Amino acid sequence: MSIEQMKKFIEPRSVALFGVSSKRIDENSRNILRNLVSSGYQGRLYPINPNASEILGVKTFPRIADVNDAVDLAIINLPRTQVPGVVKECIEHGVQAIIIATQGFADAVDEEGEQLQREIDNLIENNGARILGPNSLGAANAFTNFSSAYAQLHMKKVPVGLICQTGVLFFEFSETTFIGKAFDLANACDVDFADAMEYFEQDDDTKVVALHIEGVRDGKRFIEAAKRLARRKPVLALKTGRSAYAAEAVQSHTGSLAGKDEVWEVALKNSGIIRVSDIDELADLTRAFSMLSLMKGNRIGVISVSGGLGVVSLDACYKYDLEVARFSPQTIERLKGLMPSWQGVGNPVDIWPACMVLKQPIPHVITEMLDAILSDDGVDAAILVWNIELRRTGANIREAVPKLVETYRDKPLVCCLFGTDTEHVRTKLKKSGAFMTTGTPERAIRALGRVAQYSAFRRSL
Amino acid sequence: MSIEQMKKFIEPRSVALFGVSSKRIDENSRNILRNLVSSGYQGRLYPINPNASEILGVKTFPRIADVNDAVDLAIINLPRTQVPGVVKECIEHGVQAIIIATQGFADAVDEEGEQLQREIDNLIENNGARILGPNSLGAANAFTNFSSAYAQLHMKKVPVGLICQTGVLFFEFSETTFIGKAFDLANACDVDFADAMEYFEQDDDTKVVALHIEGVRDGKRFIEAAKRLARRKPVLALKTGRSAYAAEAVQSHTGSLAGKDEVWEVALKNSGIIRVSDIDELADLTRAFSMLSLMKGNRIGVISVSGGLGVVSLDACYKYDLEVARFSPQTIERLKGLMPSWQGVGNPVDIWPACMVLKQPIPHVITEMLDAILSDDGVDAAILVWNIELRRTGANIREAVPKLVETYRDKPLVCCLFGTDTEHVRTKLKKSGAFMTTGTPERAIRALGRVAQYSAFRRSL
Repeated sequence: MSIEQMKKFIEPRSVALFGVSSKRIDENSRNILRNLVSSGYQGRLYPINPNASEILGVKTFPRIADVNDAVDLAIINLPRTQVPGVVKECIEHGVQAIIIATQGFADAVDEEGEQLQREIDNLIENNGARILGPNSLGAANAFTNFSSAYAQLHMKKVPVGLICQTGVLFFEFSETTFIGKAFDLANACDVDFADAMEYFEQDDDTKVVALHIEGVRDGKRFIEAAKRLARRKPVLALKTGRSAYAAEAVQSHTGSLAGKDEVWEVALKNSGIIRVSDIDELADLTRAFSMLSLMKGNRIGVISVSGGLGVVSLDACYKYDLEVARFSPQTIERLKGLMPSWQGVGNPVDIWPACMVLKQPIPHVITEMLDAILSDDGVDAAILVWNIELRRTGANIREAVPKLVETYRDKPLVCCLFGTDTEHVRTKLKKSGAFMTTGTPERAIRALGRVAQYSAFRRSL
Repeated sequence: MSIEQMKKFIEPRSVALFGVSSKRIDENSRNILRNLVSSGYQGRLYPINPNASEILGVKTFPRIADVNDAVDLAIINLPRTQVPGVVKECIEHGVQAIIIATQGFADAVDEEGEQLQREIDNLIENNGARILGPNSLGAANAFTNFSSAYAQLHMKKVPVGLICQTGVLFFEFSETTFIGKAFDLANACDVDFADAMEYFEQDDDTKVVALHIEGVRDGKRFIEAAKRLARRKPVLALKTGRSAYAAEAVQSHTGSLAGKDEVWEVALKNSGIIRVSDIDELADLTRAFSMLSLMKGNRIGVISVSGGLGVVSLDACYKYDLEVARFSPQTIERLKGLMPSWQGVGNPVDIWPACMVLKQPIPHVITEMLDAILSDDGVDAAILVWNIELRRTGANIREAVPKLVETYRDKPLVCCLFGTDTEHVRTKLKKSGAFMTTGTPERAIRALGRVAQYSAFRRSL
């Protein structure tokens, strides 16, 4: 499909809406028109509803044939038996991009669902019209405040492109908003991963692409598109349906064939895609790649509020193929100047004695120690493990970190924050950008490990 | 050591405090006396400070010899060179339990640190006095509002016993408070894991024990105590210092020998201890075992807001050795009555069509579906995967779940909640008790997997 046609799905200038209720439009209901009006979407809206003249101040039309405008996109949210007829009307009106939210096609177990799907397939044969779905939340685009989801989303202009087969990923997980821009392929009867990946390959708003895959129809085309995309941008994949039982469930969810997991393992690896093990990792890596720069090597410096978490961090470096940096003599000297004479100096650096025994102010110690290790040529990235025991120490981090991030732009810094009220501090810190906050040292280092892995892949090209 | 002596560390009736400043007592400073006074600890407090007559309204004493009372516990937070002298005075006064918070003994790299440690070792030889530390936050007990930590803790009366070698675990991780009751062994020059495990074996306030281990001196005694404890209560272990490099860091943190990781793997397994891979898992399992009942089998029922997360849940069941329950014909019939006719009925159950297509009220659907699967004799535990898209749906869960938990007390229920504002809803739900909330289906199911594993171990005894 051409990029221009994919743009009609995710950057539409005019949208026809089928199945918008004139009731249920309070702030708790699921109403796409209310969502679009309140989000500030600037395109032209054409709700199709023969039983109303206007909804929420927007003029309605009895049928799409009555709309005297070129319509980029139609979004259908009607009972399934009405869908083929409406698809036909849309095509006759020249609409080339159609999103079907309705459930009960390939995801159904009855004969009627199959029959309805065949009707739709036949309707779009050889006329250039394309369908996203069925059973799909459609597309979302924080950069134009557009979303075809009937549920209200919290979109942010993050450089993240999502391609998924379940609409739940349009919502937040572990403080991660996956959208940026997103396509819910769902049943994927027509528009597929390759189409969406080709869009993101060209899209300058997108820096990292996250995939949730249940199955693909055209494996060869998937791999070709994935290979091209992964050379330009990091691509993360959560491939589900690993066990036989889960593969069965995939079929009743999106009608997809899950495929053998070992085959997927190899295919993803050969494409340069980073396979993640779970949703937490998908969330962590999405944030890591959208916020951090690539790395020049894999040598990590660790600064920790506790020797114990320093050890935990080294365990994680070992697990995720990162090297524990050996500091230069100059760095060692600089660190020694901040620490009690009896303390051993090495990597990890234990901050606490400098604060407790020598009673130096915490922001000073953090800044100086981080600056010492980030300026070391033998360090490619750093992690700060800190306990937000009080709001005040959260403020300390806010003071200490952002300037360093400016100075050492090419060395990723991850702040692992725990203790009470971390959400509060993390939310504030996220706004500073260019460094990541996360919960445990292990997750922080897993993320750095994958950034290092992808950086090496890019250097090898 | 006798349990009575361990009680002096964690249930002291009278405490002498060394190193309490008469300054720095505002709410942001670290002052153990202020912490104890404000937490409501009811024991007798004897701050030892020759330069003050009272601090915070509590009478001070120039030396411990001036205290005309039996002192259960002494807590020392003085510069390291003063520590041996004070330990000697404590012993002379008949104190049998001493916590040393001061750093710079076995954790130091200089000769003086080693020398000071030897002095302390000699002082407690053959006189019955025992030392917890050095470099330790000591002990904490939410049930008596006691804590020897200079930092303020958020303790809760949860049935969790913690034994760790780093004080950071006294703070919160991933909404988990590990205390209950806790011992920070730190350098573990004297009081060791076996001592603390023997205490928790007898302690009725404790239902699950979490260990953070860097190394132990007496492996044989550790295993004996662990075996006894694990037969009565679930024991979780985060054993760190896995790689050679990390093992080195362990030595400079607590002076412990990390030991070969493969040996630990076998030793923990043979003791009936559940080894966790990271802090997130330690936190999840601590909560799971403290909130959920044991399981009669390993068959899981899954109810999900999305087919996609249903598949993710099955993948996790496969990974963590849980069986996907096959519902009885009666359960299938009951579920069918709630769902559109075209929808396939099986495990996982996809809730959404019942709410969207049939427009049934969400709390009704959740309650009925959960009741259907929890009442099935072929189901040992259930997971509900739900998206808190709006505060209202959070409230739905609050209505629907707690009654079911009452009815099916012997079947663990985990609610996996994602979306915006989950913290808010989770905090409220946690108060209902007896079921767990967590972030991703994978983590929820990992936790259930470990509960099933331990339940089988207990049945095998």
